[in-house]
Amino acid sequence: MSDIDQMINELVKFRDERNWKQFHNSKDLALAISIEAAELNELFLWKKEEEVETIDPVRLCDELADIFAFSLLLANKHGLNIKKIVLEKIHKNRMKYPVERSRDTAKKYNEL
Amino acid sequence: MSDIDQMINELVKFRDERNWKQFHNSKDLALAISIEAAELNELFLWKKEEEVETIDPVRLCDELADIFAFSLLLANKHGLNIKKIVLEKIHKNRMKYPVERSRDTAKKYNEL
Amino acid sequence: MSDIDQMINELVKFRDERNWKQFHNSKDLALAISIEAAELNELFLWKKEEEVETIDPVRLCDELADIFAFSLLLANKHGLNIKKIVLEKIHKNRMKYPVERSRDTAKKYNEL
Amino acid sequence: MSDIDQMINELVKFRDERNWKQFHNSKDLALAISIEAAELNELFLWKKEEEVETIDPVRLCDELADIFAFSLLLANKHGLNIKKIVLEKIHKNRMKYPVERSRDTAKKYNEL
Repeated sequence: MSDIDQMINELVKFRDERNWKQFHNSKDLALAISIEAAELNELFLWKKEEEVETIDPVRLCDELADIFAFSLLLANKHGLNIKKIVLEKIHKNRMKYPVERSRDTAKKYNEL
Repeated sequence: MSDIDQMINELVKFRDERNWKQFHNSKDLALAISIEAAELNELFLWKKEEEVETIDPVRLCDELADIFAFSLLLANKHGLNIKKIVLEKIHKNRMKYPVERSRDTAKKYNEL
Repeated sequence: MSDIDQMINELVKFRDERNWKQFHNSKDLALAISIEAAELNELFLWKKEEEVETIDPVRLCDELADIFAFSLLLANKHGLNIKKIVLEKIHKNRMKYPVERSRDTAKKYNEL
Repeated sequence: MSDIDQMINELVKFRDERNWKQFHNSKDLALAISIEAAELNELFLWKKEEEVETIDPVRLCDELADIFAFSLLLANKHGLNIKKIVLEKIHKNRMKYPVERSRDTAKKYNEL
C-alpha cells in the first residue's frame, strides 16, 4: 500500500471509531484545513526572518500534520488521487509561469 | 520512489527551474498554505448543505493541490517525513479523543 | 471624538505602553487579522445551521473584537479613513453587483 | 449618527436591496471575513520587509474595507456594540499582558 493510502486508512479508521463521518461534510473539512493553517501561521506571527527558522519543531509537525489530515480526508471524500492532482497542477503552473518570465520574481502570473 | 517523494521531486524541480527557493522561507510558505486554504473555502461560501457536494470538481482539485504543494514544500524544507508526522498526530489524537467520550460529538478535547 | 477614533486611541495607547509598534509591520498585522478570523471561524466548525446562532456570545465578542482591533491598527498605520474606505467599497460593489442581476443569488460578480 | 452606525446602515441597505440576508448566517459571515483576510494577506505574500510598506494602496483599502464590512454585518446581526466590545477586549488584554512583563516582547500571554 502506498504511503498516502496508509495515511488515509488510519485517518478513516480514527474517524469511524468515533462516528465522525456525520460531521465531515466538504464545507467543514475545508474550514478545518483553514483553521489548522492559521494555527500553523501563528507560530510565525510577529517573528523576524532570522527567528522564523528556529520555531518549535514539535508544534510545526503537529500543525502540518493536521493540515495534511483534513486535506487527505477531503480528497478521499471526493475520490481524488492526490499524486495525480498535484502533478496536474504543476503541469498547469508550468503554463502559467513560463521559466523565462517567472525566473527570480515572485509576481503572480497575471502580473508577469 | 514513494508517491510523496515523487510529488516533492516535481515540486522542487518546478521551484528550482524558476529560482524560487529565495522566496520560500517557512513563514511565507505557511502563509501560502493559508491563502490557498481560503481559496478552497471560497468554493463553499454562502452555500447550503445540499449545494456543498456539487461544487466545481476542477476548482476543488486545483485548490486542494495547491494546499498539498505548499505543505509538501514546507515539510520538505524542515526535513519532515510526512507519513510519520501524520501517523504520530493520529496517535496523539487517540489520547486527546478517547473513543468512549468523543463518539458522536464534535466537541473539542478540552470541552469533552 | 468619533467612536472609531476613540477605539484607535485606546489601541495605540495599549500598544505603546508595551512598546509593541516594533512588531506591528503591515504584513504581521494582516497575518494577525487572519489568525483571529480563524479563531472566530472555529466557533462555528462542525456546527449545523440550527446550532450556529447559539454559540457562546462572549467568545464571539472576543474574536470579533480582535479582528476589529488589528484591522483598526492596520488602517491607522496607513492613515486610512475607515468610514471613507467602507463607503467607497460599497459604491464599487454597487457597480459589480447591479440589483437586477444580483438579487436573490450568492454568485460572484464574475459569474453573474 | 455615529460613523459606525452610518457604515452599518449603508451595508444593510446594500444587502437588503439584493435580498442577501438569506445568505448571511453567522457561519458564512465569519467565513467571508476569513476569506477577505486571506486576500489582504496575499498582498504581502513572498514580500520582504522593505517591500511590505509599498504595496498597492487601492487594493489595501479594498481588502480592509471588505473585512470591516463583513465584521460590521456579523456584529450587527448579533446586536453587538462595536466600540464596547473593542474597549472591553483591550481591558481584558491589560490583565493578560501586564506592561512590566509584556514590554518589548511579542510572546503570547501563556508564554510570558
